[in-house]
Amino acid sequence: MTPSEQDPNRVLVFDTTLRDGEQSPGISLNTSEKLEIAHQLARLGVDVIEAGFPIASPGDFEAVQAIAREVHGPTIAGLARIHPGDIDAAWNAVKDADRARIHTFVSTSDIHIEHQMRATREDVKGLTRAGVAHAKRYVEDVEFSPMDATRADVAFTAEVVQIAIDEGATTINIPDTVGYTMPDEFKDYLTRLYELAPGLKDVVLSVHCHDDLGLAVANSFAGVQVGARQVECAINGIGERAGNASLEEIVMLLHTRQADVGFHTGVVTQEIARTSRLVSRLTGYVVQPNKAIVGRNAFAHESGIHQDGVLKERTTFEIMDATTVGLDANSIVLGKHSGRHALRQALSELGIEVDGQVLNTAFKRFKEIADKKKQVTAMDLEALVTDELREEIPAYALESFDVQASSARPPYATVVVALPDGERSTGSSTGDGPVDAVFKAINAATDQSARLRDFRIEAVTSGQDALGETSVVLELGGVTGAGQGVSTDIIEAAGRAYVRALSNAVRRRSVADQAADLTAEAAQASRISTP
Amino acid sequence: MTPSEQDPNRVLVFDTTLRDGEQSPGISLNTSEKLEIAHQLARLGVDVIEAGFPIASPGDFEAVQAIAREVHGPTIAGLARIHPGDIDAAWNAVKDADRARIHTFVSTSDIHIEHQMRATREDVKGLTRAGVAHAKRYVEDVEFSPMDATRADVAFTAEVVQIAIDEGATTINIPDTVGYTMPDEFKDYLTRLYELAPGLKDVVLSVHCHDDLGLAVANSFAGVQVGARQVECAINGIGERAGNASLEEIVMLLHTRQADVGFHTGVVTQEIARTSRLVSRLTGYVVQPNKAIVGRNAFAHESGIHQDGVLKERTTFEIMDATTVGLDANSIVLGKHSGRHALRQALSELGIEVDGQVLNTAFKRFKEIADKKKQVTAMDLEALVTDELREEIPAYALESFDVQASSARPPYATVVVALPDGERSTGSSTGDGPVDAVFKAINAATDQSARLRDFRIEAVTSGQDALGETSVVLELGGVTGAGQGVSTDIIEAAGRAYVRALSNAVRRRSVADQAADLTAEAAQASRISTP
Repeated sequence: MTPSEQDPNRVLVFDTTLRDGEQSPGISLNTSEKLEIAHQLARLGVDVIEAGFPIASPGDFEAVQAIAREVHGPTIAGLARIHPGDIDAAWNAVKDADRARIHTFVSTSDIHIEHQMRATREDVKGLTRAGVAHAKRYVEDVEFSPMDATRADVAFTAEVVQIAIDEGATTINIPDTVGYTMPDEFKDYLTRLYELAPGLKDVVLSVHCHDDLGLAVANSFAGVQVGARQVECAINGIGERAGNASLEEIVMLLHTRQADVGFHTGVVTQEIARTSRLVSRLTGYVVQPNKAIVGRNAFAHESGIHQDGVLKERTTFEIMDATTVGLDANSIVLGKHSGRHALRQALSELGIEVDGQVLNTAFKRFKEIADKKKQVTAMDLEALVTDELREEIPAYALESFDVQASSARPPYATVVVALPDGERSTGSSTGDGPVDAVFKAINAATDQSARLRDFRIEAVTSGQDALGETSVVLELGGVTGAGQGVSTDIIEAAGRAYVRALSNAVRRRSVADQAADLTAEAAQASRISTP
Repeated sequence: MTPSEQDPNRVLVFDTTLRDGEQSPGISLNTSEKLEIAHQLARLGVDVIEAGFPIASPGDFEAVQAIAREVHGPTIAGLARIHPGDIDAAWNAVKDADRARIHTFVSTSDIHIEHQMRATREDVKGLTRAGVAHAKRYVEDVEFSPMDATRADVAFTAEVVQIAIDEGATTINIPDTVGYTMPDEFKDYLTRLYELAPGLKDVVLSVHCHDDLGLAVANSFAGVQVGARQVECAINGIGERAGNASLEEIVMLLHTRQADVGFHTGVVTQEIARTSRLVSRLTGYVVQPNKAIVGRNAFAHESGIHQDGVLKERTTFEIMDATTVGLDANSIVLGKHSGRHALRQALSELGIEVDGQVLNTAFKRFKEIADKKKQVTAMDLEALVTDELREEIPAYALESFDVQASSARPPYATVVVALPDGERSTGSSTGDGPVDAVFKAINAATDQSARLRDFRIEAVTSGQDALGETSVVLELGGVTGAGQGVSTDIIEAAGRAYVRALSNAVRRRSVADQAADLTAEAAQASRISTP
């Protein structure tokens, strides 16, 4: 029995950060990064993690399988088009999960059926019947989505939905694929769907809303108001184009207005801020300061702007308490004299258990940072362990660098990089700026011709000795690699990020080479559109 | 006769970027920056520009007055609490505008009346009667807002609203001050208000929604559905806490769904992207990549991710065309051989007319950039002229720098800064990183002890030779200063930004010193809360 069967006001949270979110341009998470996010989503208490689109690439398959095997608590879902090959791949990827779900979809809008699928309505009905039945042979928990439903004929969509239910679908998800609908229109659509597909009342209705017109959260909420008990959403609202409904916004809306609307979720709201920071860091997608719930200024009273009035005004201007979303985590402070035990203790409070060699590495990096920075806060530690303490060994490592920059002559950089075989290689280059010179010197030292796609730097904490956190996305022979680096020194942080991005790209390129054996259809899947 | 009187489906756009937006933590625009934004808002075709809160500080007063005098087209509004002193200041600031408006407000929620105002409902009625009458003596166009209305007793709010209408208010604005309401609840509230305040049907109803729960746009739209014909909003959704309804989202929602909902605005949608970039650059508030309409990925088909399918899919996956919001502006490309005439022509196409000394300065900076960068695009030019070609002369200028950074020893920077008196001063320093060393060296050269509050760098355009755009916010003796710098060299961009921020802080400090003469009430106004 699902939580929503036990309690009619319980709304299931289906997180698609790792599927729809990961399809955003420029995001390229590797398996260990996806696992890290999935573990945090489990701590956050989401009901379902959509871990990926297994047919899309061997890397996607591997990541979904790793999450299914290692992450406990939430249901693990894999996405599949309505074809047997997709469904087989999805099942193979998720079958080891404690609770596995296959999520399969096909378009019901004429515009998609005619132009994208080059098929007929009858084809869609047949595909749905066969596809859901095929998935059902593997697993009880099958979700079906009629893609682009909000632009489709509601009567035809209802026919297809009823077929899916007849074949055993347990969740029916209605995607507003292009972010086109409006709250009242969406309510009318779903209400009509309940009338036309009588089986819908016996399964979980889900909604999947995109934010192209800024209405994703309002449309999701409208869905809940007329009967949906699953909401598909993503951390920080990432996803295709303008992204999906923000998990944190829909959850805190239901939480803050619970007394009035009666709905609730199983999310541990205190984990929201940290989950947001982790996803932002690993995807390189910044959260704007004025983003609801998780933006730096969402709780302006916390940022010292209303210091005078805050005590008098707290009841008058706050509808949420910042601690509810976990924004009080900066109590831990370490300094240069803190020892290994204190570091381990502090990391443990952050839910990060380290030991042995990883603790040694963490301690070494901590000491380097603490030497330059007076106070090392919880957020600094979080950045450090997230960005630099992955267990896998990077293909390359930045050993040392030397840069001269001046307004009088072009910048010049020399770097020493440790290669995968343990050898050291030195490279030098000029550049348009000192960071560009370092990147080109790293290319020279590694004999790679990577090209920079995106470069970003942000302060982790405020103040003169803030840690700089750098994200690099580069392209190497058709594949992209992303990496992060952290230091009080921008050039060092940039160099570390570039070397990690390069290592990721090299790994991905070798995976891509293996993928050349895949069928044409499978290779194409990574480019097709999804709900 | 206003456009909405002529056409019942015309929704007025009231932009509060320069008032509510500018109240965001860390934003500190000077008068020339506010003028630049106001001119762009006029090009964008907004109906009303709320230019500031004149009583809050002499700087606010000066900026509102400058906008009222120099910006033609939109109505220019000044905000005022319901007190005579505020209203006098607002009138004095806006009176030279082609069309001037006073916007005055007082809370109607018991929680505000009791805890914040320490007053009674009768006081609020009396203040409203006297305040609106006072404003009306100055100008026909008076807007009244019952602050925190959505948490107030609707019957009492209706009484106060009717008083304001009786005294001559021509626009009644209902603020969801704390971002608490939901679309259906807001519709019910406004419908009830129409019933209880019979005069409301004869004036313009306006809505002002905050985004704390992610519903600002949906709530604004709900308001329009039940009769509101003015929407208060801000570019990029900036504003207190999670900000206001995003202008671009509510405008493009009405535009995209016009055939279904019938409403329209006077906004020139093609100016949206550029306005967004300008506001982001000058406020230092980044726009997240997945932000609706103006995020880098909002039109993912444009970013090369679906290259394969785009021709086939354009009709199936796009509900808006990127050119509609002005995202096609990158056709202009200059190179190192482009001359002064080509530059002037390109700037002119961007709506920026330069001549004489300003053209010389622009050309010099353009050549420096073009020497390092193969192609200089429209967006590069926009960044250059926005950040570096203000007409005012900065107090300090970075003449040259020299930095050494290495993993072997602390970074060391030497800078030469031109002082306001024309003298040159040299400063040197080590630091936690090369940028920190440059900042400290600038402090040494200028003999100032500024402290860094925020530092950010972003790529303007993509690719290896992208321009880096740096934002610095620093604090100097209690006042903040913000500055931007642009270069292919991060350290140069950072140094330029720091020197500009320092110059701004020095100017603001001297304004703050003058402000010490203000009455206690006026001084307090900058800290009070607004709708």
